[in-house]
Amino acid sequence: MTISIVGIGLLGGSFALALRDKYPRMRFVGVDASAVNGQLALAKGIVDELLPLPEAVAQSTLVVLATPVNVILDLLPTVLDQLPAGATVVDLGSTKGLICDLVDAHPNRAQFVAAHPMAGTENSGPGAAFRELLPGKNLIICDRDKSDPDSLALVESLFRDIGMKLFFMTPQEHDLHLAYVSHLSHISAFALGLTVLEKEKDEQTIFDMASTGFSSTVRLAKSSPQMWAPIFDQNRANVSDALGAYIDFLQQFKQIVDNQDVTNSLEFMKRANVIRRVLDGIEKR
Amino acid sequence: MTISIVGIGLLGGSFALALRDKYPRMRFVGVDASAVNGQLALAKGIVDELLPLPEAVAQSTLVVLATPVNVILDLLPTVLDQLPAGATVVDLGSTKGLICDLVDAHPNRAQFVAAHPMAGTENSGPGAAFRELLPGKNLIICDRDKSDPDSLALVESLFRDIGMKLFFMTPQEHDLHLAYVSHLSHISAFALGLTVLEKEKDEQTIFDMASTGFSSTVRLAKSSPQMWAPIFDQNRANVSDALGAYIDFLQQFKQIVDNQDVTNSLEFMKRANVIRRVLDGIEKR
Repeated sequence: MTISIVGIGLLGGSFALALRDKYPRMRFVGVDASAVNGQLALAKGIVDELLPLPEAVAQSTLVVLATPVNVILDLLPTVLDQLPAGATVVDLGSTKGLICDLVDAHPNRAQFVAAHPMAGTENSGPGAAFRELLPGKNLIICDRDKSDPDSLALVESLFRDIGMKLFFMTPQEHDLHLAYVSHLSHISAFALGLTVLEKEKDEQTIFDMASTGFSSTVRLAKSSPQMWAPIFDQNRANVSDALGAYIDFLQQFKQIVDNQDVTNSLEFMKRANVIRRVLDGIEKR
Repeated sequence: MTISIVGIGLLGGSFALALRDKYPRMRFVGVDASAVNGQLALAKGIVDELLPLPEAVAQSTLVVLATPVNVILDLLPTVLDQLPAGATVVDLGSTKGLICDLVDAHPNRAQFVAAHPMAGTENSGPGAAFRELLPGKNLIICDRDKSDPDSLALVESLFRDIGMKLFFMTPQEHDLHLAYVSHLSHISAFALGLTVLEKEKDEQTIFDMASTGFSSTVRLAKSSPQMWAPIFDQNRANVSDALGAYIDFLQQFKQIVDNQDVTNSLEFMKRANVIRRVLDGIEKR
């Protein structure tokens, strides 16, 4: 069986590495717009061979689209046009609404599975890929009833084989929730990074005075702009709402601080403390 | 030598545990407003004995104030009044301006050292203390020239002995920097936790969909309100400025998203990416 990984970065690369462990004789073909990334992926043993997209698609039982979401929008219709009968294409994009809408009426829609693994790090590229990224994490599949049972069986088997737990929802539900549990965290980190860099012109000061709490809150500000700009753009209505709600809470708290209102300051933080229950669960997962 | 730990929580407890490793015959007296915390600290081997504050102070070579900063303001003048000649009091509070101002004209000011270890976790109480918290981290000492050379020698020796690196600055510099590299991270996490909790009424959804990026960004929302409310209040001018600057960046980004301005979205994140250099340094430290 041949699997093509289109966009051999953190996610596509980690998926291939985890699968190779389980299926040592599976053949992996890499497709990447960057020649350097292609060579790195070969050197790391993520893929066996590099091919242009049309040739890779023609030989594949499964095509995995793991590029930034704007490139997924560009490639998916073409891949569906060219996909051999009985083959499947799955995307791993962090938005699902526009991608699912785009191919909703495509004659080969049933050969497509819309997926999103709830996993990532602030690093990108084939060098950042590692086989342990996906095992133990959750995978969301959207519009499951629009995919062919065989395509679903293949995709679900592979993700279950590498130790992922599957969840199902509509693209609209996915994009709404993701704005809050993922996209907003990234924006808060980018903005926090910028605020501190603007104020503390001397990086040595941040370095000397910041503790691990700072690092963990700002870590996502290292994330790839090329990956995130199209995500925020494709999910802009939900992201804008989430950001608006977040700004409201921050303004509330600024007012509390300006008013020296220690009672409401305590109250605000006690309400936020409820998140401990959720976070402790995520960490144990 | 007897050291009193006043407020036997994460910071005071971790300091004692690290010191006990280096000085097995040092005697530690605990003072805590909570009888439960006192018993836990005894049971964990953080302190050898519990005493009321005046008796503890009377027997101590060093008194360590490791309570919330509002309690430090309450206790410090009394401790300085009662401190035996030749003994020293050090505070570990996260604000320095008000604390230093309060005792600036105290007749025993020279027996006081104003310190702040750049270390912590989102957990609190004696149960959260661990001997590895402080070693390898930085300690800031403020108004060093107002402390007696012998008091400084004692405090600086002990913190260096447990592997901390020392930095010196004015209380005003300390409070300004801390607003950006610590206080703001905490507020951003508290507000992010609240935003997600408000929107996602079903905690199971957050649990199923959140990835490790979410956990790391929101982790500080588990922090103790009792500890943080007085910090934000004592440092309110700087915290309010930092929060204002942060809200401005978030509003800028919301505008970028609303305008579908992908060029400036990329630019915003690329500028934030510069923080990678600082964070990589902190993680290697």
